Amino acid sequence: MTRARLRDLGITVGHLPTGRYNAITDVPGISVGYKTLVAERPHVVRSGVTVILPRDDARWEDYAFAGIFSFNGYGEMTGSHWIEEAGLLTTPIAITNTHSVGIVRDAILRYAVESGYAAPFYLPVVAETDDSWLNAAHTFPVKPEHTVEALKSAKSGPIAEGNVGGGTGMICHHFKGGMGTSSRVVETRSGAFTVGALVQTNYGVRQLLRVDGVPVGREIGADRVPLARVFPNEGSGSIIVIVATDAPLLPDQCKRLARRATVGLARVGGTGHDGSGDIFLAFATGNHVPAHPDGAVDLRMLPHDQMDPLFDGTAEAVEEAIVNALTAAGDTTGQEGRMAHALPLDELKAVMKKHGRSR
Amino acid sequence: MTRARLRDLGITVGHLPTGRYNAITDVPGISVGYKTLVAERPHVVRSGVTVILPRDDARWEDYAFAGIFSFNGYGEMTGSHWIEEAGLLTTPIAITNTHSVGIVRDAILRYAVESGYAAPFYLPVVAETDDSWLNAAHTFPVKPEHTVEALKSAKSGPIAEGNVGGGTGMICHHFKGGMGTSSRVVETRSGAFTVGALVQTNYGVRQLLRVDGVPVGREIGADRVPLARVFPNEGSGSIIVIVATDAPLLPDQCKRLARRATVGLARVGGTGHDGSGDIFLAFATGNHVPAHPDGAVDLRMLPHDQMDPLFDGTAEAVEEAIVNALTAAGDTTGQEGRMAHALPLDELKAVMKKHGRSR
Amino acid sequence: MTRARLRDLGITVGHLPTGRYNAITDVPGISVGYKTLVAERPHVVRSGVTVILPRDDARWEDYAFAGIFSFNGYGEMTGSHWIEEAGLLTTPIAITNTHSVGIVRDAILRYAVESGYAAPFYLPVVAETDDSWLNAAHTFPVKPEHTVEALKSAKSGPIAEGNVGGGTGMICHHFKGGMGTSSRVVETRSGAFTVGALVQTNYGVRQLLRVDGVPVGREIGADRVPLARVFPNEGSGSIIVIVATDAPLLPDQCKRLARRATVGLARVGGTGHDGSGDIFLAFATGNHVPAHPDGAVDLRMLPHDQMDPLFDGTAEAVEEAIVNALTAAGDTTGQEGRMAHALPLDELKAVMKKHGRSR
Amino acid sequence: MTRARLRDLGITVGHLPTGRYNAITDVPGISVGYKTLVAERPHVVRSGVTVILPRDDARWEDYAFAGIFSFNGYGEMTGSHWIEEAGLLTTPIAITNTHSVGIVRDAILRYAVESGYAAPFYLPVVAETDDSWLNAAHTFPVKPEHTVEALKSAKSGPIAEGNVGGGTGMICHHFKGGMGTSSRVVETRSGAFTVGALVQTNYGVRQLLRVDGVPVGREIGADRVPLARVFPNEGSGSIIVIVATDAPLLPDQCKRLARRATVGLARVGGTGHDGSGDIFLAFATGNHVPAHPDGAVDLRMLPHDQMDPLFDGTAEAVEEAIVNALTAAGDTTGQEGRMAHALPLDELKAVMKKHGRSR
Repeated sequence: MTRARLRDLGITVGHLPTGRYNAITDVPGISVGYKTLVAERPHVVRSGVTVILPRDDARWEDYAFAGIFSFNGYGEMTGSHWIEEAGLLTTPIAITNTHSVGIVRDAILRYAVESGYAAPFYLPVVAETDDSWLNAAHTFPVKPEHTVEALKSAKSGPIAEGNVGGGTGMICHHFKGGMGTSSRVVETRSGAFTVGALVQTNYGVRQLLRVDGVPVGREIGADRVPLARVFPNEGSGSIIVIVATDAPLLPDQCKRLARRATVGLARVGGTGHDGSGDIFLAFATGNHVPAHPDGAVDLRMLPHDQMDPLFDGTAEAVEEAIVNALTAAGDTTGQEGRMAHALPLDELKAVMKKHGRSR
Repeated sequence: MTRARLRDLGITVGHLPTGRYNAITDVPGISVGYKTLVAERPHVVRSGVTVILPRDDARWEDYAFAGIFSFNGYGEMTGSHWIEEAGLLTTPIAITNTHSVGIVRDAILRYAVESGYAAPFYLPVVAETDDSWLNAAHTFPVKPEHTVEALKSAKSGPIAEGNVGGGTGMICHHFKGGMGTSSRVVETRSGAFTVGALVQTNYGVRQLLRVDGVPVGREIGADRVPLARVFPNEGSGSIIVIVATDAPLLPDQCKRLARRATVGLARVGGTGHDGSGDIFLAFATGNHVPAHPDGAVDLRMLPHDQMDPLFDGTAEAVEEAIVNALTAAGDTTGQEGRMAHALPLDELKAVMKKHGRSR
Repeated sequence: MTRARLRDLGITVGHLPTGRYNAITDVPGISVGYKTLVAERPHVVRSGVTVILPRDDARWEDYAFAGIFSFNGYGEMTGSHWIEEAGLLTTPIAITNTHSVGIVRDAILRYAVESGYAAPFYLPVVAETDDSWLNAAHTFPVKPEHTVEALKSAKSGPIAEGNVGGGTGMICHHFKGGMGTSSRVVETRSGAFTVGALVQTNYGVRQLLRVDGVPVGREIGADRVPLARVFPNEGSGSIIVIVATDAPLLPDQCKRLARRATVGLARVGGTGHDGSGDIFLAFATGNHVPAHPDGAVDLRMLPHDQMDPLFDGTAEAVEEAIVNALTAAGDTTGQEGRMAHALPLDELKAVMKKHGRSR
Repeated sequence: MTRARLRDLGITVGHLPTGRYNAITDVPGISVGYKTLVAERPHVVRSGVTVILPRDDARWEDYAFAGIFSFNGYGEMTGSHWIEEAGLLTTPIAITNTHSVGIVRDAILRYAVESGYAAPFYLPVVAETDDSWLNAAHTFPVKPEHTVEALKSAKSGPIAEGNVGGGTGMICHHFKGGMGTSSRVVETRSGAFTVGALVQTNYGVRQLLRVDGVPVGREIGADRVPLARVFPNEGSGSIIVIVATDAPLLPDQCKRLARRATVGLARVGGTGHDGSGDIFLAFATGNHVPAHPDGAVDLRMLPHDQMDPLFDGTAEAVEEAIVNALTAAGDTTGQEGRMAHALPLDELKAVMKKHGRSR
């Protein structure tokens, strides 16, 4: 379903090397699953569910540290209170559309309870962006079973981007948006670590879009994505960013990483418009916190003054993940005959070349 | 369903006068609705939904300012990100059990969409405490229609307490808990205001229970609620507190009020145990923020240095609301033959009298 | 200078055992120093500086984790941004009066620079409460050298309370306040730990004062002992709480502990009045973070679900530390002939006995 | 002292029009004062104090709303607790070097007390960046009287940039940094408003420096500012951003504005490196909160959904203010023969022209 990735076009952003797949799944143990919902009748459905499993852990008993940053809180991410309190990610993460956050949240809890997992209950992390422009969201097409299908489909290795999972019906910088991913490998005095990002992009205005600093949105697209949108607030939308690393970070350090997603977003042209739920979560698999430890848990901590490479890597991975969502997502028709145009790849290549940025 | 209210027993806490009904509904415009679910088969159900409508506003277009404080975040309150960002309460508030937060959240959104309310979507505020000791929560008995029934049942004036709505299956200080409410009328240099509290209590250990400082939990109940509970963490549970006032507060000031709920909780014996989701929301109806204003909105602000009466009133109302939940809730049998004993009222009166606190 | 400690009077609060000295210095490695400033001319001085050194570490290179909670932010605690960001306490803590926070803060930095400590600069943690009712604060009697004297005087073991150090000129619940301390020893599945509190008390109104729930302030009212202070906002003042433990906590867990200081404060009668800077810092010495680590740092973490004993211990230690400040501080005359009366110990004993709380 | 401003070079960033002076002083009522300290012996001094007075208000009795965002908290901004609590800016703001935050903070309080202003005390807002590479900071050359001189020198209209006030000894992207300012005029449905930024820049690495997206730092400067710095952490430093507007914002909305400073910083190449104190404060003069109101205060609020122009304007003003600091600051020698090279303006123009960005 992926049209192209940015690097396929001979364009790069940033300085740091990517991981093997240039994906969040380069962080060992992480898997991603999608359930994509596309239908034409009785209602036009362009929606779905994306899930991220933080590690190989069949019974969710090996917690990772995590932290959240809300750059602009016009959105939802359930499970935030416990992550803010304890810094622990105890469930998979899901991303879906605004109308279905609750269904998906309870479905994850139910899945765990019915699978016989240990805890009496869970506080699942589910985030959203709004697909009600293309998708008949008011018909509530996302069902509990779709979440379970997404969970069961999760895999490591290369993953799809663009019009898949929760990203199926999304718009980004007035072009077709969706899922995107990227990763970086960074060196520290404590060793090499991978940092990866997965984004569900549904934010932004065309004229602010930039790729590696080149004002792409000013130069292309005016013919196909005129600035007037149907939305009352033209910049509304949202972006959810999930950052993952195998570095041994503490919860506060995850929050620091989450905050750096803002840098990647700003580079591409995000300003956190009022109607945008720009909520970022970072988790780190380098420490293992058992669900039911007997005594004190042994941990390691990357010193704060070795975090700069991870900060730089996070900014780059988020930046590239967003652009990958744009290059991957194809033209999409939606309800009421609406059309979301894909970012034109030839024009992108041309403008980058003109600015000396592509091979 | 209410057994008794604290003041019916000749016991008072605090110094300030109550409102007419000694309830959150003393704040003009506020209504409360319950859907109580009780069944014996095929599963033992002791659960439900409580809703608070912030004001007479048939189409949810007259927003109130609000603020949230999480004293201990082992719980869920959806909609928190937007309240933290913008300080606006844009939907009713619901409280239910942990397993059903999502169902209830989406049901509120769906209700608004299907009612033709103006916004393309909503970010409903839904909180929870865990009733899985008495209630067969793993069978997920709370359904979307129960939320709608609770919404439609909402009324002002006197409201039920104890084993109703979301509080049906809850435990508090090892006695039967549930819903409780109380209010205070306070004087400021800007006039008189009402502050009310509604609580869903499901936290605490017996030996820390105090009423007006009297160590009630040390003196009664050892025979019927021995300290060992089935829960791995005996203090686990949660308490959700909703504080409302008609004072013209700004969002930050609502957050200040929410933080004072901690004082009321601490007076009764709460310490925010690890497994307790102690999340407090305060909202103020004294200002009106239209959903779709054309220009700048006129507001008033109670000066910060006039807030002490509201702080004191919040502490007292929360303190009394918690105790009202205990005096109101009756003995309850639950799944697997479990028994939650009500706080014995005669013994409570006796111990308060012994300590010189009742008439 | 200490008149008496609460337990000397045959009164106890809480259930848990104290450490050897019932002081924050029961946490191994912690020392406390005071510089007390008392003069009659040219200005009436009742002021000083209190310092807490987090551990035996001559060059401040062995950092402890820390977290801050501001229950009511009408006050100052410098160094908060770095603790919020990184969770690291990198300097001693000082507490002084409002007018001298800056002087003391720079004096600590200068002391480190001139002592040849390793960092090019420091971000010292200095907090305050306002002594300008008794003390001629407008003459700025606290000087840099007083901070150095306080640092050099720091010792472990039993420490003075009441009218010493930063607490010299303070008022609490309209009685003479000042410094107070207490500690608890708690058992967890990971072993026994000590938690201690040191408070500088300058908050509160008479009628809300309680000891072990007994409404002492109602019974020893203004008719018995005249109220100190006539501020427009009578509850203004502030309380600074420092909580310390040898448990191996992470930064987030320190913040959880800091938040529980609210419970101890509420038990004594604090409600966080508007003009009160109620800012709490907790640090944990159980982990060691070197200032300049080469690689990843090995840590241990007390599991969250073993923290309840520390929460309970924090609440009790803070509660008792506040009351100790009241029982320790003696009658004090101040500028303009003002008089702050000490809490009368005989009457306290009588009231507690009447309520069945003392031997 | 200003070499040049970016627009003098024929280069612009952003889309929105500037105010008259393209400075924070375009916001009516705001004045800025500097005390610049330069000496060669006995120690090399390159330091100073910058002050921002939020409005014409001789006795500091007309408070403005304010909010703070710490993007990376390795720094100090005193007064943060009260702004977080109450959203009120009650004093001028000062920015100086790290070693002198306390001196400057107490000097402001003392100035108010000695001027007979109404409050018994103040909680001044003072921030810092570290000039100890060029400046003999360890000799503590900033004195209380310098703060008073800066306060008294404050004026509206055009203001100096570069090597002045608190910015005298700062480094930015490895070039000479310092003070910079810029402004934007934005249109909303509630009318036109001005948003201005003042920055003290001391952060960043050369290779990430961008101007309007052009990778300036990759193309120039390698000969004069090789990447190796004396600092152990090469990205360390800090940036303080003050954002001001005459829009009628509430405290939460000021915080939203402060958060958008991150976008401007990210566009120029900031990533919030570990050793950087990137702390942003925004205040709004459109509402007036009297220091001692009798009754409720009348306010206006710009609706949240009209804030996008202010968000865009903040991002642009911060972006341009940072670059202005670089174009304004000249070559500076410091202690131990150290040399901070100014950003070469001819080369900047050439590289911008090459990328099609200048006239």
